[in-house]
Amino acid sequence: MFFHTKELQYNAKPSNPDPVYAKKLQEILGGQFGEMTVMMQYLFQGWNCRGDEKYKDMIMDIGTEEIAHVEMIATMIAQLLDGAPVREQEEAAKDPAIGAVLGGMNPQHAIVSGLGATPTDSVGYPWNSRYTIASGNLLADFRANLNAESQGRLQVVRLYESTTDPGVRDMLSFLIARDTMHQNQWMAAIEELEQNQKAIVPSTFPQTLEKQEVSYSFMNFSNGEESSKGRWASGKSMDGISNFEYVANPKAMGQIPKLKPSPAYIHGSVMPGQVPPGIDKANFDQANQGNELH
Amino acid sequence: MFFHTKELQYNAKPSNPDPVYAKKLQEILGGQFGEMTVMMQYLFQGWNCRGDEKYKDMIMDIGTEEIAHVEMIATMIAQLLDGAPVREQEEAAKDPAIGAVLGGMNPQHAIVSGLGATPTDSVGYPWNSRYTIASGNLLADFRANLNAESQGRLQVVRLYESTTDPGVRDMLSFLIARDTMHQNQWMAAIEELEQNQKAIVPSTFPQTLEKQEVSYSFMNFSNGEESSKGRWASGKSMDGISNFEYVANPKAMGQIPKLKPSPAYIHGSVMPGQVPPGIDKANFDQANQGNELH
Amino acid sequence: MFFHTKELQYNAKPSNPDPVYAKKLQEILGGQFGEMTVMMQYLFQGWNCRGDEKYKDMIMDIGTEEIAHVEMIATMIAQLLDGAPVREQEEAAKDPAIGAVLGGMNPQHAIVSGLGATPTDSVGYPWNSRYTIASGNLLADFRANLNAESQGRLQVVRLYESTTDPGVRDMLSFLIARDTMHQNQWMAAIEELEQNQKAIVPSTFPQTLEKQEVSYSFMNFSNGEESSKGRWASGKSMDGISNFEYVANPKAMGQIPKLKPSPAYIHGSVMPGQVPPGIDKANFDQANQGNELH
Amino acid sequence: MFFHTKELQYNAKPSNPDPVYAKKLQEILGGQFGEMTVMMQYLFQGWNCRGDEKYKDMIMDIGTEEIAHVEMIATMIAQLLDGAPVREQEEAAKDPAIGAVLGGMNPQHAIVSGLGATPTDSVGYPWNSRYTIASGNLLADFRANLNAESQGRLQVVRLYESTTDPGVRDMLSFLIARDTMHQNQWMAAIEELEQNQKAIVPSTFPQTLEKQEVSYSFMNFSNGEESSKGRWASGKSMDGISNFEYVANPKAMGQIPKLKPSPAYIHGSVMPGQVPPGIDKANFDQANQGNELH
Amino acid sequence: MFFHTKELQYNAKPSNPDPVYAKKLQEILGGQFGEMTVMMQYLFQGWNCRGDEKYKDMIMDIGTEEIAHVEMIATMIAQLLDGAPVREQEEAAKDPAIGAVLGGMNPQHAIVSGLGATPTDSVGYPWNSRYTIASGNLLADFRANLNAESQGRLQVVRLYESTTDPGVRDMLSFLIARDTMHQNQWMAAIEELEQNQKAIVPSTFPQTLEKQEVSYSFMNFSNGEESSKGRWASGKSMDGISNFEYVANPKAMGQIPKLKPSPAYIHGSVMPGQVPPGIDKANFDQANQGNELH
Amino acid sequence: MFFHTKELQYNAKPSNPDPVYAKKLQEILGGQFGEMTVMMQYLFQGWNCRGDEKYKDMIMDIGTEEIAHVEMIATMIAQLLDGAPVREQEEAAKDPAIGAVLGGMNPQHAIVSGLGATPTDSVGYPWNSRYTIASGNLLADFRANLNAESQGRLQVVRLYESTTDPGVRDMLSFLIARDTMHQNQWMAAIEELEQNQKAIVPSTFPQTLEKQEVSYSFMNFSNGEESSKGRWASGKSMDGISNFEYVANPKAMGQIPKLKPSPAYIHGSVMPGQVPPGIDKANFDQANQGNELH
Repeated sequence: MFFHTKELQYNAKPSNPDPVYAKKLQEILGGQFGEMTVMMQYLFQGWNCRGDEKYKDMIMDIGTEEIAHVEMIATMIAQLLDGAPVREQEEAAKDPAIGAVLGGMNPQHAIVSGLGATPTDSVGYPWNSRYTIASGNLLADFRANLNAESQGRLQVVRLYESTTDPGVRDMLSFLIARDTMHQNQWMAAIEELEQNQKAIVPSTFPQTLEKQEVSYSFMNFSNGEESSKGRWASGKSMDGISNFEYVANPKAMGQIPKLKPSPAYIHGSVMPGQVPPGIDKANFDQANQGNELH
Repeated sequence: MFFHTKELQYNAKPSNPDPVYAKKLQEILGGQFGEMTVMMQYLFQGWNCRGDEKYKDMIMDIGTEEIAHVEMIATMIAQLLDGAPVREQEEAAKDPAIGAVLGGMNPQHAIVSGLGATPTDSVGYPWNSRYTIASGNLLADFRANLNAESQGRLQVVRLYESTTDPGVRDMLSFLIARDTMHQNQWMAAIEELEQNQKAIVPSTFPQTLEKQEVSYSFMNFSNGEESSKGRWASGKSMDGISNFEYVANPKAMGQIPKLKPSPAYIHGSVMPGQVPPGIDKANFDQANQGNELH
Repeated sequence: MFFHTKELQYNAKPSNPDPVYAKKLQEILGGQFGEMTVMMQYLFQGWNCRGDEKYKDMIMDIGTEEIAHVEMIATMIAQLLDGAPVREQEEAAKDPAIGAVLGGMNPQHAIVSGLGATPTDSVGYPWNSRYTIASGNLLADFRANLNAESQGRLQVVRLYESTTDPGVRDMLSFLIARDTMHQNQWMAAIEELEQNQKAIVPSTFPQTLEKQEVSYSFMNFSNGEESSKGRWASGKSMDGISNFEYVANPKAMGQIPKLKPSPAYIHGSVMPGQVPPGIDKANFDQANQGNELH
Repeated sequence: MFFHTKELQYNAKPSNPDPVYAKKLQEILGGQFGEMTVMMQYLFQGWNCRGDEKYKDMIMDIGTEEIAHVEMIATMIAQLLDGAPVREQEEAAKDPAIGAVLGGMNPQHAIVSGLGATPTDSVGYPWNSRYTIASGNLLADFRANLNAESQGRLQVVRLYESTTDPGVRDMLSFLIARDTMHQNQWMAAIEELEQNQKAIVPSTFPQTLEKQEVSYSFMNFSNGEESSKGRWASGKSMDGISNFEYVANPKAMGQIPKLKPSPAYIHGSVMPGQVPPGIDKANFDQANQGNELH
Repeated sequence: MFFHTKELQYNAKPSNPDPVYAKKLQEILGGQFGEMTVMMQYLFQGWNCRGDEKYKDMIMDIGTEEIAHVEMIATMIAQLLDGAPVREQEEAAKDPAIGAVLGGMNPQHAIVSGLGATPTDSVGYPWNSRYTIASGNLLADFRANLNAESQGRLQVVRLYESTTDPGVRDMLSFLIARDTMHQNQWMAAIEELEQNQKAIVPSTFPQTLEKQEVSYSFMNFSNGEESSKGRWASGKSMDGISNFEYVANPKAMGQIPKLKPSPAYIHGSVMPGQVPPGIDKANFDQANQGNELH
Repeated sequence: MFFHTKELQYNAKPSNPDPVYAKKLQEILGGQFGEMTVMMQYLFQGWNCRGDEKYKDMIMDIGTEEIAHVEMIATMIAQLLDGAPVREQEEAAKDPAIGAVLGGMNPQHAIVSGLGATPTDSVGYPWNSRYTIASGNLLADFRANLNAESQGRLQVVRLYESTTDPGVRDMLSFLIARDTMHQNQWMAAIEELEQNQKAIVPSTFPQTLEKQEVSYSFMNFSNGEESSKGRWASGKSMDGISNFEYVANPKAMGQIPKLKPSPAYIHGSVMPGQVPPGIDKANFDQANQGNELH
C-alpha cells in the first residue's frame, strides 16, 4: 500500500515557460528509458520477487522513489507549458519567435492535455509496458536495471546540455545525481549476486547440456579482422571457465532447409506445372480453367 | 552489404511437428528479447558507431550472426507447424488430443502465415523497434546488450526445459552456447571500456554539476530496513569515488506544487464560484445559463 | 513523493493455484480498464490539476489507492501461477487436465516473467498510456473516470462469476466494493461541478458560436424510427436550454467535395488521357515511353 | 448495409490552405477521442447490441452520422494541404515563413499520403481500436460515450480557438453543435437507464457479495484533508443506498505478501548461500564452478 | 454522408454457437487484412482522391460495401458467442469438451465485450490504421488493394476449410465471391491505368534521373543460381523498356563508411586512450578520476 | 547464414548535414513501406517458402539486398545529423535559421540515439512487423511485394524532390533504380505464376463453393453512376471466366439481425421494465433497491 505526501522529492520550478523544451523533456518522463519505465519495472520486479527479503525491500524502495520522479517531471512540464501561445492570432502569426514556438510544440500539449504533461515520449508516442522486464531472475533483471539507469542518465545529461534555464537545470542535476546512485546501486547488487553464482544467466542450467564447442568462440561474420583486437577475442573468458577463441572464417554447421509443401487446406503456393498435393486433378483444372458462369 | 549462404549456421530439425510448441518458440524469435531484437539492435549500433573501428567491426560481426539465428528459429517453427490439424473435421473434434492442439496453437499460424513462422512473440504480438537501443554511447549500449543476452538465454533455457524433442533441444543447445559466449563478450567489452573511463554513464559529464548530496544515498521509501543489509547501502561506492549512505527516513526537498490556472482559450476547469480568467463575466454567464434557442 | 508500506490494502491469497485464471485476471491489471489505467489516469490528472486544491487532493488520494490495487492483483497473479506445470514431461502430456492448463496459460507467464504478473491484459497485449486521459478540464475527466470505474467494476464482476476460488473471490469482493465507492465518488464530483457550470463540456465556449440549428436535433440515419421513442428524441434537453427535435429524414447540408489535383512534385495519379499539371509534355512522354537502355 | 451520398453532411471548405493546421486537425480525425473513435465505438456497440430495439436503432443512427464526420474532416484536411510547399527550393529555404510551414507540417502528409488526410492523430500516431469500448452493458457504454463526446467537444473548441480561418471555423461550429447534441443525447439515455436500475454498473450483481464495509468510504491516501470538503466525502451516497464516510487514516487490511520460490525449471533467482530447490547440489556446484572446457 | 439500412448485405446466421471459432473469425474482421482494413483503406482513398470522378465514385462504392462486410462478420461473431460457457462451475471443469472451449476462447470476448465482436484480430491484437494506405497515387494504391483482396480471400478460404457449420460457410461463400469480384475489379482498374502510363510507379519521374545501370539488374546475393531460371532474370523487362540482366556476383559500389565522432554535448562513446573532442582534458580527467565527495 | 562486407552497396554521402531532412528520410528506413519492411518481408517469405527452389533463392537474393539498403540509409542519416545544433545557446536561440533546425528535427535523434539513425519512421513511430506479410501463397505475397515496391519508389521520389543535396540525390537515384528493377521483378514473377494458375488467389478453392451470383457484380453503393464507366463495370472479367455486371441499385440479401440477450453472468444491459434472464426477481429487486448499509 502507498501514501502520498504533497511535497516533491526535489524542486521542480522552471525559471521561464518553454513549450518547446517541454516537448523534449517528455522523453525522460514517458520514453523508452524514462521514469515511467523504471517506476513500473521496479514495482513489478518487487511485487513478483520470490527471493530474499532484502532484495524485495530494496527494489520496492527504489520503485517507490521513481514514482516521485515521474511526479517531479510531470510538474515541471506543466509549468514549462504555462501560457503557451496556442491561440493563433493575426499578430502572433507575424512574429517569427512565436511561430517557432507554435511549430516546435507538441500539439497534443494544447489540444489533448490542456497544457499538462502527457504519459508519452518526446515524439508523442505513448508509454507501453513492453519497455519493462521482470523475469523472475534477479541477476538478469539487475542488468536490465543498470542498463535503464545508464541510458536514462545519458538522456538527462543531453537534456541538461540543451537548456540554459537555471530552474530546469537544478531539477535535472538532482535526477543526474540519483542516476549516479542508481547505477552504483545496481552494480553493487550485481556484484553481490555474481559472487554467489556463475556470472552467466541463468547459472542453474548445467553447462554440459549446451553445445560447448561454440560457447567461447568469437565468430567473424563481417570481413576484416579488426574485431580480433578486443578483450572478447582472446584470453580468459569473463566467467573464468574457458578461453576466448577467434574464428576468422566461421563455417555453417547446419542443413540447407527444405520445407515440405503445405497441406491442401492451407491453399499455399501452386508451382508451375504442379497440381498441389491433396487436390484432385480434375477439380484443380476446373478451378483453374473455370467455365463461363453467365 | 550482405551475402547469404543457404546452409544454416546450425541444424534446425525437429524430431516431430508440434504446433503448440511452435507458438511458444515464437518468443525467442519475435519477442522483446528474441533474436530479431538483438539482430536489429546490433545492426543499428554498428551502423551508427562513431568510434574505434574494432568496436564497429565486432558489433557488425555479432549483428550479422544474429540474422542467422533468426533464420534458424524461423525454419524450426515452420517445420514444427508441418501437418498441423488446422482443418476441423467431424472426427477430429472428438479427439481430445487434436482438440488440445487446435486450442493451443496460434490461429494466425494457420490463417495468416499458412504454417510459417511470424515476426511476433508467443502471444502473437508483433515485434517493434522500441525493443532496441543504439544510443551513441558504447558503454551504455553494451550494458543493454548484456541484458538482452541474459534475458535471452534465460528464455531459451526455459523453452529447452519445456520440450523433450531431441531435434529442438539440439538447436536450443547451440543457441544457449552462443548466448554464453555473447554474455562473456559483452562483459569483456564492458570491462575494457570501464577501465578507460569512469563506470558511470556518461563519464564525460562533470560530476560537480550534479546534486552531489544525493549521489551516493540509498533512500528507504518502503517501510522496514531489510534493504540496509545489501552491498548498496554501505561501503565504498562501485565507481570508487565515494561511500554509500543509508537514509532511513528520506525527506522531501521540494516545493508543494501549485500550477497556475490555464489561459481562457484552453477551456480548462471551472471551479465552483469562479469565472475563469480571461473570460468576460457576462459572456460566461450567458454561456453558463444560456437561453432558449427554439 | 510516495511511501510504501508492506501490508497489502486487502488480502490477496488464492485458495489454490490456477494458471489459466491468472491469465484472465490480467485483464483488470493491465487491460484497457484495468487498475494500471486508473492509477496512471488519476496520477496524471492530479499532477496536471490547475484548480481548487480539494480536487487535486481528492484525485491524488484515489490515484495513490490505485497503486495499491495494482499491487494486490499482481501479488494474486504470482500466487495463482505457483507450481504451474510448465515443464512438459512425457507423463504430463498424457494427462488431459494438465494439457488443458498448458494450453490455457499465457506462455509468457512461464517464458518471460518466470511465474510473475505482467503489465499486460488477458491476451498478453501490453498496457499503454493512450488508455488514459488528463485533459485539463475536470468535468470532462470525471466523466472519463466514471466510465473507467463502470467498465472496471463490470469486468471484475464477470471475473468473480468465472471462478469459485474463495480466496480470489474475497479479494475481488473488496475491489468490487471500492468500485462501488469510486462510481459514487465520481458521480458526486460530477454533480458538484455541473451545479457550478453548464453540463455541456466545455461550458466556457459561447454557444452563440456553434451552429445552433443542429445543437438539439436527433438525426435518423438508420432506417426505421424506433429511435424516436427514447428520451433523447423529444422533450427538454438535458442541459435545460432547448428541446430535443427528431429529424426523420436528415438532409446533407454540405458541398460535393472536389479536390484539386496535387502539384507535380507529389507524383500523384495520372488520369487517362492527361498529362499531370506542371509536367512538361515532352518530359512526360519520355518518362512514359522511355527508350532502350541497353 | 450502408449507402453513401456524395454531399457532405455540412460544408468543409477552408478559406486558405494551412498545412500546419492540417496537422493539428488530425487530432479530431484519428486521435484518441477523434471521430474515428466514436464512429467505430458506436458501430460496434450497435452491432453487438442485445437489447431493446430502440437503443440499437439509436446507436446505429449516431454511428452512421459519425462516418460522415470522419468524411468531412478528411476532406477539410486534404484541402488545407493544397499546394503545401513540400518541394525544397533554394529560394524557399531562405523565406522564414515557408521554413515555418516546412517545419510545422507532418512530413507524412507529403511523403506518405501525397497531401491527403491520414487515419492518425496530430503527432502522426495511428488510430487503434483499443480507443473504443463495447461492453455489452449499455449503461457502462453510454458513460463511455458521454466521456468521448465531452473530450471530443473540448478538443474541437481548442482547435476552433487556434485558427482564424472562417471556413474552418464554420465547419467546426457545426461539429461543436453536434457534440452539444450528442452530450445531451447520452445524458438522456443514461438518465433513462438509471431510472430503471441502480446507478452502479453492473446493477445486477448482488451487493451483499461485495465487501460492504468499504463500499462508501473515501480514503485519504494523500496527506492533508482538503479532500474532505467535497460532496464525495459526506452525505448521502449518489446511489441513494448509504452515506459517504471519510477515512482520514486508512489502514492496511491485507497480508505482507511472501511468494514461494519458483520451481527449478524456471531458473529463477539464486540467493546468496542457497542452492535453488529441485537442483541437485553437485550439479549446481558443477554449474557454478564449471571446469575448463578447452 | 451515409445511411444505414437494417438488413444485412447477406445472411450471417451460424447453425450453432462456437466460441472457439468466433476467436478465429476475428482475423477477417479486425486483422491486418480483415474487412476493417479494406473499409478504412478504401474510404480514405476515396476521400483523398484528386482525380477523375469515376475512380472516386468507384472507390466510394466499394468502401461503403465493406462497412457492410464488417457488420456481417461482427453480427456472426456475436451469435457464435451465444451461450459461451464463461461461468466456471465445478461440474463444467470436469468436462473436457467444455474445458476445451474455455481454453480456446478469447477471454476478452467474455470479460471485455460481454459476448460481442471486438475490433481486433484472432490473437486479440487491436486493429490499427497503419494497416492501410492512401498514397495519392491511384496505381500504387490499386496494387495495395489487389494485395489486400488476395490476402483477404486466402484467409477467408482457410477459415471456410476449418469449420463445418453450414450457416458460417454460407456467409463465407458470399465473402469469397465478393473477393473474387474485388480482385477482378482492381486488376481491371490497374490494367486501365497501366495502359495510360508506364507500369512503374510513379510514372512521372524522369527515368534519366535514376541510376540506370542498375534499373534492370537482378542481383544474386544468396549463393547458388537457382534464381537465374525465372522470368525476372532474363528477357524483356515488364515495363517494355529494357532487358533483364542477371548479375551472378554483385559488387559493392559504395564507400566504407566512417562516421565522425559526435560533438561533446552528445556524450557519445569514449574510446580507449582518447579524450573526447571538445572536452577539456583537465575537465575530463576530473570527471574520470573524481575525488572523494564525503 | 549471412556475411557482411564493409563497403556499402552504393555511396551514401551527403554533401552537407541537414538534420531536418534526416527526420524525413527516416520514412524510407523505418516507415510502413521503408526498407526495413521489405527486408523483413522478403526474409520471412524466403524462410517460410514451401515451393520451387528458384522462388526461394530469388526471394533470399532480394531480401539480402534489402539489408544493404537499410544499411545505406542508416549511414546517410547519421551523416545528415553530423553537428546538429542540439545544444541550445543564448546566441543560437536568436538565429532564426538555427531555430528552424531545432524545431524541425526529431528530438530523439539528439536525446535517444545521439545523432544516429533510428528504426522508426518520419514521425518517430517505431517500425513493427505487422507491416509485413508472408502468407505461404506466393502469388498473394508477390502482389504484396509489388505494392511495397510501388509505394516505396513513390516515397523515395517524393524525398528526392524535396532536397537539392547532390550526395543525397545520388544515393536516392540508386534506390529509385533498384525499385524500378524490383517492380519489374515482381511483375515478372506474378506473370509467371498467373500463367500457371487462375489469377484469383487462392486458385485452388473450387469456385463452385462460392456464391457465384455475386462473383462478378459491381455494386453501386455511392449515389451517382460515374463508376459504371470503368473497365471493372462491364466486359470480360479479368480472370477470363465471366463478365462484369453493374448493379445500379444493390439490394440487401440478408436478415435483420436480432441477437439474443446475454446470459445472466455476463451482466449485460438491463432494459426498462425487464428483469434480466436468469436473475431471480427478488434478488434483482434487492440489487436494484438495496438497503441502507450504515
